[in-house]
Amino acid sequence: MLREITGFSNPLVKRVKSLREKKHRRQEGLFLAEGLRILTEALEAGIAPKMLWLSPEMKDHRLVQPLIEACDDAFLTSADILSKLSGKDNPQAVLGVYQELNQPLATLDRSRADIWIVAERLRDPGNLGTILRTGDAVGAGGLILIDDCTDPFSVEAVRASMGAIFTQAVVQSDWRSFVDWLRQGPGQLVGTSLNTDQDYTTPRYAKPTFLLVGNESQGLPQDYEADCDLLVKMPMLGKADSLNAAVATSVMAYEILNQFRR
Amino acid sequence: MLREITGFSNPLVKRVKSLREKKHRRQEGLFLAEGLRILTEALEAGIAPKMLWLSPEMKDHRLVQPLIEACDDAFLTSADILSKLSGKDNPQAVLGVYQELNQPLATLDRSRADIWIVAERLRDPGNLGTILRTGDAVGAGGLILIDDCTDPFSVEAVRASMGAIFTQAVVQSDWRSFVDWLRQGPGQLVGTSLNTDQDYTTPRYAKPTFLLVGNESQGLPQDYEADCDLLVKMPMLGKADSLNAAVATSVMAYEILNQFRR
Repeated sequence: MLREITGFSNPLVKRVKSLREKKHRRQEGLFLAEGLRILTEALEAGIAPKMLWLSPEMKDHRLVQPLIEACDDAFLTSADILSKLSGKDNPQAVLGVYQELNQPLATLDRSRADIWIVAERLRDPGNLGTILRTGDAVGAGGLILIDDCTDPFSVEAVRASMGAIFTQAVVQSDWRSFVDWLRQGPGQLVGTSLNTDQDYTTPRYAKPTFLLVGNESQGLPQDYEADCDLLVKMPMLGKADSLNAAVATSVMAYEILNQFRR
Repeated sequence: MLREITGFSNPLVKRVKSLREKKHRRQEGLFLAEGLRILTEALEAGIAPKMLWLSPEMKDHRLVQPLIEACDDAFLTSADILSKLSGKDNPQAVLGVYQELNQPLATLDRSRADIWIVAERLRDPGNLGTILRTGDAVGAGGLILIDDCTDPFSVEAVRASMGAIFTQAVVQSDWRSFVDWLRQGPGQLVGTSLNTDQDYTTPRYAKPTFLLVGNESQGLPQDYEADCDLLVKMPMLGKADSLNAAVATSVMAYEILNQFRR
């Protein structure tokens, strides 16, 4: 059923807007995603919004109808309120509120994919979302976040993921629990590091590969590197000694994929 | 000579702060770069700041002395003013004002490098800076910006470049002028596109390769694609049909580099 909400002071407007803050996302177990394309992809992946907000011109859009039917509550609202909800001057005409999708490590089925991405203390939401997007592209199973990473359900991370937040499993863990879980089954843990001479194109990667990337400015802790089966690095021909974290992850992920599809 | 400026209303503070806006950068031909590491890399590349701003604790830093000696004017200031200049809550303790480094296409020596990156209507400053950073890493000669791209000298782009703004040539051009220039000498123009079945690992790239990447949401215009020697695409195994623009450029750039170093 489609209801109309046009008052800025409506408590529901305030509540949905508050999901831009991590504290409120944790309290409610909900997060925001914007844009018809992303919401449609989520639905195709079997994930319906709890709440749907749309501007009037979208009401009869062919792709909006299935979203309205699938969600618990749908609200017709103004562009101004959508702008307030999303925090953007030019908001998308459709916004969804979703249940957070954290998966416990123990329930992760590693045999579902040949590539898994593991990120440690990743700080930038754009990097996190971009890594999810690359994960989707290379057929990864999901992203395992180690220690204190930026929130994968922030508006910025969800936006950068371009819908991959709905197709990639997202797990939050600490290092010890992750390594304990990893060693209970098959899996090659490959870390990207400056502390090796091993070129990333040299080794033959083994399925499933767990590709590990460290914090943007500090890289991986030494003892985490010691837990890896393999450390590799990318050639750096210029003045800088590192790549952007999402770029490094993606270059690595495509090398692994290229080996597996040869 | 090191002078002290601590007043927020000092006209020089206002003038430097105004360089956060494109209009003022164009008027003055100047831009901002932050952080001791990046400023030191610039100096090593032979580029000194016109003005240097530092917080008191940096005055006697070993790496700051050469910067003070190399620049026209050095100012000791407060963290609050550095915060105002850079627009960040936690500003870097060193900030430099540099002359914009646009290079005319006509003076570009293509024989200087085996890889050149060409970006068309790139909109995101983070993507632009990240592409510069990757360009540095793969030994590219520079970045050629086509049509209406985001400003490479914005604070965000410079920050994301991590110093590569000083080591990569930056050229701004329109498509026709670029293609005319390109065809006057050797160079394979390779576009990334969804409109091809050619996998990006299949062709043998020819030196120098000009790697062309299109607008984040629209990709390349059809007639630009028609001007390319080669169109290639990356495998996309998931739901999404594209990668982040900086990621796509970087995955391509490393494939080209890997071929050249085999």
